[in-house]
Amino acid sequence: MLKAAIIGASGYTGAELAGLIQGHPNLTLSGLYVSDGSQDAHKPFASLHPRWRGVIDLPLLPLDDEALSRIHTEADLVLMATAHEVSHDLAPGFLAKGLPVFDLSGAFRVPGEGFYERFYGFQHQHGDWLSEAAYGLAEWNQDAIKAAKLIAVPGCYPTASLSALKPLQAAGLIAEGSKPIISAVSGVSGAGRKASVANSFCEVSFKPYGVLNHRHQPEISHHLDNQVVFQPHLGNFIRGILATIYVQLNDNVSDEQIAAAYKQAYQGQKIVRLTGQWPQINDVAGTPFCDLHWARDGNQLIVVSAIDNLLKGAASQAIQCINIHQGFSPLAGLVQE
Amino acid sequence: MLKAAIIGASGYTGAELAGLIQGHPNLTLSGLYVSDGSQDAHKPFASLHPRWRGVIDLPLLPLDDEALSRIHTEADLVLMATAHEVSHDLAPGFLAKGLPVFDLSGAFRVPGEGFYERFYGFQHQHGDWLSEAAYGLAEWNQDAIKAAKLIAVPGCYPTASLSALKPLQAAGLIAEGSKPIISAVSGVSGAGRKASVANSFCEVSFKPYGVLNHRHQPEISHHLDNQVVFQPHLGNFIRGILATIYVQLNDNVSDEQIAAAYKQAYQGQKIVRLTGQWPQINDVAGTPFCDLHWARDGNQLIVVSAIDNLLKGAASQAIQCINIHQGFSPLAGLVQE
Amino acid sequence: MLKAAIIGASGYTGAELAGLIQGHPNLTLSGLYVSDGSQDAHKPFASLHPRWRGVIDLPLLPLDDEALSRIHTEADLVLMATAHEVSHDLAPGFLAKGLPVFDLSGAFRVPGEGFYERFYGFQHQHGDWLSEAAYGLAEWNQDAIKAAKLIAVPGCYPTASLSALKPLQAAGLIAEGSKPIISAVSGVSGAGRKASVANSFCEVSFKPYGVLNHRHQPEISHHLDNQVVFQPHLGNFIRGILATIYVQLNDNVSDEQIAAAYKQAYQGQKIVRLTGQWPQINDVAGTPFCDLHWARDGNQLIVVSAIDNLLKGAASQAIQCINIHQGFSPLAGLVQE
Amino acid sequence: MLKAAIIGASGYTGAELAGLIQGHPNLTLSGLYVSDGSQDAHKPFASLHPRWRGVIDLPLLPLDDEALSRIHTEADLVLMATAHEVSHDLAPGFLAKGLPVFDLSGAFRVPGEGFYERFYGFQHQHGDWLSEAAYGLAEWNQDAIKAAKLIAVPGCYPTASLSALKPLQAAGLIAEGSKPIISAVSGVSGAGRKASVANSFCEVSFKPYGVLNHRHQPEISHHLDNQVVFQPHLGNFIRGILATIYVQLNDNVSDEQIAAAYKQAYQGQKIVRLTGQWPQINDVAGTPFCDLHWARDGNQLIVVSAIDNLLKGAASQAIQCINIHQGFSPLAGLVQE
Repeated sequence: MLKAAIIGASGYTGAELAGLIQGHPNLTLSGLYVSDGSQDAHKPFASLHPRWRGVIDLPLLPLDDEALSRIHTEADLVLMATAHEVSHDLAPGFLAKGLPVFDLSGAFRVPGEGFYERFYGFQHQHGDWLSEAAYGLAEWNQDAIKAAKLIAVPGCYPTASLSALKPLQAAGLIAEGSKPIISAVSGVSGAGRKASVANSFCEVSFKPYGVLNHRHQPEISHHLDNQVVFQPHLGNFIRGILATIYVQLNDNVSDEQIAAAYKQAYQGQKIVRLTGQWPQINDVAGTPFCDLHWARDGNQLIVVSAIDNLLKGAASQAIQCINIHQGFSPLAGLVQE
Repeated sequence: MLKAAIIGASGYTGAELAGLIQGHPNLTLSGLYVSDGSQDAHKPFASLHPRWRGVIDLPLLPLDDEALSRIHTEADLVLMATAHEVSHDLAPGFLAKGLPVFDLSGAFRVPGEGFYERFYGFQHQHGDWLSEAAYGLAEWNQDAIKAAKLIAVPGCYPTASLSALKPLQAAGLIAEGSKPIISAVSGVSGAGRKASVANSFCEVSFKPYGVLNHRHQPEISHHLDNQVVFQPHLGNFIRGILATIYVQLNDNVSDEQIAAAYKQAYQGQKIVRLTGQWPQINDVAGTPFCDLHWARDGNQLIVVSAIDNLLKGAASQAIQCINIHQGFSPLAGLVQE
Repeated sequence: MLKAAIIGASGYTGAELAGLIQGHPNLTLSGLYVSDGSQDAHKPFASLHPRWRGVIDLPLLPLDDEALSRIHTEADLVLMATAHEVSHDLAPGFLAKGLPVFDLSGAFRVPGEGFYERFYGFQHQHGDWLSEAAYGLAEWNQDAIKAAKLIAVPGCYPTASLSALKPLQAAGLIAEGSKPIISAVSGVSGAGRKASVANSFCEVSFKPYGVLNHRHQPEISHHLDNQVVFQPHLGNFIRGILATIYVQLNDNVSDEQIAAAYKQAYQGQKIVRLTGQWPQINDVAGTPFCDLHWARDGNQLIVVSAIDNLLKGAASQAIQCINIHQGFSPLAGLVQE
Repeated sequence: MLKAAIIGASGYTGAELAGLIQGHPNLTLSGLYVSDGSQDAHKPFASLHPRWRGVIDLPLLPLDDEALSRIHTEADLVLMATAHEVSHDLAPGFLAKGLPVFDLSGAFRVPGEGFYERFYGFQHQHGDWLSEAAYGLAEWNQDAIKAAKLIAVPGCYPTASLSALKPLQAAGLIAEGSKPIISAVSGVSGAGRKASVANSFCEVSFKPYGVLNHRHQPEISHHLDNQVVFQPHLGNFIRGILATIYVQLNDNVSDEQIAAAYKQAYQGQKIVRLTGQWPQINDVAGTPFCDLHWARDGNQLIVVSAIDNLLKGAASQAIQCINIHQGFSPLAGLVQE
């Protein structure tokens, strides 16, 4: 059993990670941490996430110096479900001690001049790690994930979007010069566990946000190697992302070519399901799956992708990355086979 | 006070109509009707729609021969919130008696060879009325609505879509040959008041439907005079439609031209609100308004439109049409001024 | 037209008040105010409550000295949708200027030694006004409401509870020494418009709170003149309260006596509806009504009451009080007749 | 691995059973069945319950004669998630073949003259099995469950109610002659997977039902051995039951006695959690747990219980019964330890 430390276990993603590791046949929890000054420090994990009461009986420990050395000596790997800046600052320290880091923040996902300054508001100080990090889109980067010390687990919208688009891009089916349009909706848990009027029960309402300037647009474009238009919406549900993607196909693309592109990409990959029916949030919420289906009319293709933003869009994809990195069974801790 | 008969008062749209007429300064309810064989016949209206208990104390009468002659002699106008086929069959009879008909079904919205056969599953028998009917998009067809005997009140998705797109089309800003992409989501009330597993509380989940073959695509394209891609989704809320629309602009279109196009279209039109903030469902649910806002990046424009599907998408737009047709104040019965 | 000033117009109740006054035939808005240091000061009302955009185009003014003198000279009456302490501190000043005050806080509802210290955490300084205030339960205290200068509009739970229980108490049907048990559930808007993790979309879940120590227990007991057990719950809906009340009847009470008690209390009172069906939240949400229905088995009576917590539980009951106080039609601004 | 046949696998409870058995270390699915004439016959299980796509790839087989003999020869045990009448008719046949039957319907829960006629609308024909059946309240009837051939898994409301009340009854703390009042709310899934206007997304609203005549009142009273008042409500959430229970205590009962009663009952029983915080639906939805907490004021005790109606209220409790019956680990297939 490898021992995993979770940094940022007070949030929704950290809680999902804790639950997945608790049920994983090859992993065990070495400790749950929150930032040093957090008001949640020393609280029982289950007092914040009471559904785990009686199952996960660990405290949330403050990430002070003592905690850092305990992680350095006791943990076999580190999962970071932390703010981007926190991951940026702390990951290199763990890496220097030889601990593999699976980072669920955006801190190491997108190399490129000026990207972090513009979209995250800070200057990146660790260009070396940024360029060495493997992008943890599990079905696509297995060799890199296996080899890397730092795995940047993709954002939730990019996972939904890239899972749908990369097969088309790989097969050269997207019309040259066209930008796929990604119209996506996320559950409210995507905004994290924090107090805000905007995310209060009485205020949440279906609406667009981040119009034409969301940081996931360049993340998707970079890892697709094709520019996209990306438009997120807030949905009035807790968990899940559904992306409806509008693609201009090259002329003379056949249905068979499209089907072959998806089959080629996902045959034998149980986490991505080519469903044959239109995906919906309820089918994937609480599961590690990505559901995909498409239809076309002439050169206009519509492909729809659905995931749980906290799982395939974060925690369960991190577990997929650990499974790949450590050579565990690909579905270990994710699907009862 | 003009007397309005509502055919199809058991459904959600019929109930909204009844409430709006009850509160209208120039209209009064002449009778509430359901189809002759309906199991709701003779029930009090308020037993199906209990929020109106003590306010609207009328029965749902079966539309038998006696009812028809009562309408012919007593009513001043007829509102039809009925199935498409029912409107198709019954409207000409009311019209023949000289009664203006405001039809909320799809039966008289789209002239065109083969349209009804393909998209509604029946052969249209009343081509004359189909071509004479005014399309009741209130802000755009006032002269036709004033003059016509039969007003075909637009569908909910077309209202949201056309309100956003017609100003751009009128100003010639949409790139030639491009198809605007309408990615829209509707509340469950759009499916009507009926028992179905798909619309049950436990099954409703955000999802796409009608992919590349929804009947509102040709309705929008016809009345915009430009082809569109239209993709509806089911949202997990009761009322409202939000449409996020992706438009390719002509080269060298300025922000000022776009702003002018919307101002030109809606200045003085209080029902369409150029909000300056992104629309959301909660702001329009239960109101007669259509909220609009846009942003652009180069030639890519995103315009978002939100309405209440049962109001601006049906009942309150029908009242707007009556107000125009009868020369009442444009906001009578809709907004307290 | 009387001019009404609303103090506390940034919150949900204040917004409902503004909307009701906007639509009232005898009232007009003299001004919308927030506390002097509020970050919402000088924002347009409709930027916080965008559904009123284009209908109510007033700013939220800070309640500084200038504002106070403007209210003193220009307003005809004052509505306070403010924190309890704020109402406690400010109401006497308005009253001293001869302005009638309709206070929606708890500051003047319950006379009694030590009550405010225990349940509200402050020492009451205005015992004179506390004893002079009329309790604004509209169907029960019309003479007092008409005569008083200060009207303490009841809390939402007390309104639902007392409307159901007072007819039984008045008719002497409740078993002596027994305590009615009020098991009630409120929508999340009852917690007000503020940021908190507990009221965030992802955290709201059906649950009890305030067990055996809620401040509405003594308010209900005092105004019923009978002790009760009161247990509130948080429901996962935005608006509405439903109270299921378990009452031990005296021996030999007949169905006719119960029916007569309710008829006696509410005949001719259109806001309280004896529905003949079990109340539900959707039937009253967005309406000024209180729906009541009961059943009994031997000495065990169950009576269920439903209101909109922001309307009959706050804003529309305040309007009822104004209508009574000013001699307007009882339903003016509330129900289109 | 024992082979389990599920009868009634198209419904929500059947689907939960299938998922639990799929993940159980000692059980495997022998077949999924629906009634012979069901329109779901021969459909893939995952087409009705798409979240299980790729995990459970079995068809729904019609329960015809061939299916019956296949079950007789191949299955080791039978789970019935069927209508009450169907369980009543079919269970004796399976039992006659020596197959243990775990019945999730109400058909064998309550012995007593006239009970089934009055509350279920049919005459019970199998009084022998009715009296031999063990009532599968897992924490309370372990010996009987171990020994019985037929286990009647309790209803959802009775599980929530009895788990809270039996410790008090066992310790003799309930005031003699008093009836505990159970005010409970269930998610909509309790009504099953079927089309109905009442359970449609637009109609579901918090409300009481079954007032003073619900069939679970006698089930609870019988198995508590104390009469109760039971009042169910429909909640606007999918899964879960929360029961708020009002109990009159005997005089001079101490807090320590109450705490001891619960500790005595549930020490070492991991499925029932004495939470120390007030239970809420979200903490138990999707889990096998029953959360309990209480407070008292004098002789008035309030105890609150929460479960997932489809799990501890049905499917996971059936698994608990199988674990007990077969001597498996008590939490096998339920909690990852």
